[in-house]
Amino acid sequence: MTTDRLTNVAIVGGTHGNELAGIYLINRWQHNEFSRRDSFNTQLLLANTKAMSNNRRYMDSDLNRQFAAKCLNDMSLTNYEQSRAKVINQQLGPKGKPKTDLVIDLHNTTSNMGPTLLIPQRGEFYDLLAIYVRHHMPEAVIFLDEDHKPNDDHHLLCTTGRYGVIVEVGPVPQGVLKHRVTEQMARMTSLILDFVEHYNLGSLPELPNEIGAFRYLYSLTLPVDDEGRRVGMVHMSVEGNDFKPLSPGSPLFATFDGETIRYTGEKTVYPTFINEAAYYDNNLAMSLCEAATILNPLK
Amino acid sequence: MTTDRLTNVAIVGGTHGNELAGIYLINRWQHNEFSRRDSFNTQLLLANTKAMSNNRRYMDSDLNRQFAAKCLNDMSLTNYEQSRAKVINQQLGPKGKPKTDLVIDLHNTTSNMGPTLLIPQRGEFYDLLAIYVRHHMPEAVIFLDEDHKPNDDHHLLCTTGRYGVIVEVGPVPQGVLKHRVTEQMARMTSLILDFVEHYNLGSLPELPNEIGAFRYLYSLTLPVDDEGRRVGMVHMSVEGNDFKPLSPGSPLFATFDGETIRYTGEKTVYPTFINEAAYYDNNLAMSLCEAATILNPLK
Repeated sequence: MTTDRLTNVAIVGGTHGNELAGIYLINRWQHNEFSRRDSFNTQLLLANTKAMSNNRRYMDSDLNRQFAAKCLNDMSLTNYEQSRAKVINQQLGPKGKPKTDLVIDLHNTTSNMGPTLLIPQRGEFYDLLAIYVRHHMPEAVIFLDEDHKPNDDHHLLCTTGRYGVIVEVGPVPQGVLKHRVTEQMARMTSLILDFVEHYNLGSLPELPNEIGAFRYLYSLTLPVDDEGRRVGMVHMSVEGNDFKPLSPGSPLFATFDGETIRYTGEKTVYPTFINEAAYYDNNLAMSLCEAATILNPLK
Repeated sequence: MTTDRLTNVAIVGGTHGNELAGIYLINRWQHNEFSRRDSFNTQLLLANTKAMSNNRRYMDSDLNRQFAAKCLNDMSLTNYEQSRAKVINQQLGPKGKPKTDLVIDLHNTTSNMGPTLLIPQRGEFYDLLAIYVRHHMPEAVIFLDEDHKPNDDHHLLCTTGRYGVIVEVGPVPQGVLKHRVTEQMARMTSLILDFVEHYNLGSLPELPNEIGAFRYLYSLTLPVDDEGRRVGMVHMSVEGNDFKPLSPGSPLFATFDGETIRYTGEKTVYPTFINEAAYYDNNLAMSLCEAATILNPLK
């Protein structure tokens, strides 16, 4: 068994001000014992309070893109979210030498991703966590998001901790609170806390030898004309089918002229973040993933 | 057969700036023959251009609440949407003595309402239109929304015309363009234009004796505490079940403390606009409807 131990855990809500489940859950957990475990301390934090008040994702720039080491160290980046990022890095990090062992960041998506555990780094801790969560919540999806990247280059808030994950649950429109989605977020967060408790105490139950997961490959943009105007949308045969196979030659986009644009890749992929409202800013249509397997490092 | 005839029809998109289907369809129809029929003229209009540019529902106040005669005539109401309403009333109305015979206003909702034809007035034209649309599009829902109210008191943009309807399609998050939803909006709009053509030419096909519909009763607010803070959300057994029966005693809300609040009305009702994101501003949870029947006035 590992000698690794986690002393300080932080759960963050409201990193995006219009993703309500995390905000309501943090507010609730501040008044009950939900996040309490014996072997570690848990801090609860609301990240983008100004965007929350305005029911917007962000005020000046996306807070969950401000945590690369380069940005945190660049004192010329001074807008609201760039400032909040530096403060949150002081509170939870500092990145690279953090006082927080695990940051759990709570997010909603408009995409039909169900309860997804997003993992941006590799290692035995993550492998065991992913297997534990899937074992206890079979509907959970494990999403390995650029887990090869040096942590300093990651721009996600959760990468301020020694470990960090995102609990990403959808579908839910921005600014809407859905009961089922909120319960799924609470359930996944509770399982992560339970896992850390077992991990610390060396009391992990017998777990499967392996589980299925998805690893991010690259993103697709919406089709545009020569002047950059959108000329199509995600095809209805893809919409809502997050983490379902997309084979070469399948419909991908429908143009406004009624044409079908097909997926021309050479292998079957698994789209996700399909039609995520917030990604339209960058004209993104979806992320493509490949299927992956996580092996139990204790076997 | 009636001697009524429609000469000028207007189709409006972007009354809410983050409801994308209508905006994209109007832009498309400006460059093709989709909205053209022989017996009447069709005007295409984008209503809240500033909110569209900002990907917001509205800038200062909801444009689709500014068209009561009292507001249109009150020159002290001068914010952006109050000003746009007065200009649109000049273009399509004036309300009460309009140059436009029919205004079709295109909307999206985050609620699971499918393709819904919202009718805010009564009369033979509307009854025939509703029966025609349902006959050709069985998945369409007919929603009679305060159809007893004097037209001057209605605050909807579509009530600037002699006749007016809303094509309301969901579910789709704000700021997202969905292929299926967009196709449903185009299909329903096309059927309305076809109907007007038949109505004008006296060439309506044989239609059913009656169809089912829903009539608005009243709205429900989310549960709040003594200080007006939300203490619960729509119960997962209601979420997504727009136009499905809700019986006395059924779960209605889930409080953040895990309690279930039940529906205490005395008769079965049919909720809609369940969890519509935009209605949170007014703390609305849903609208309740009763089942209604529309009889064919030609039988």
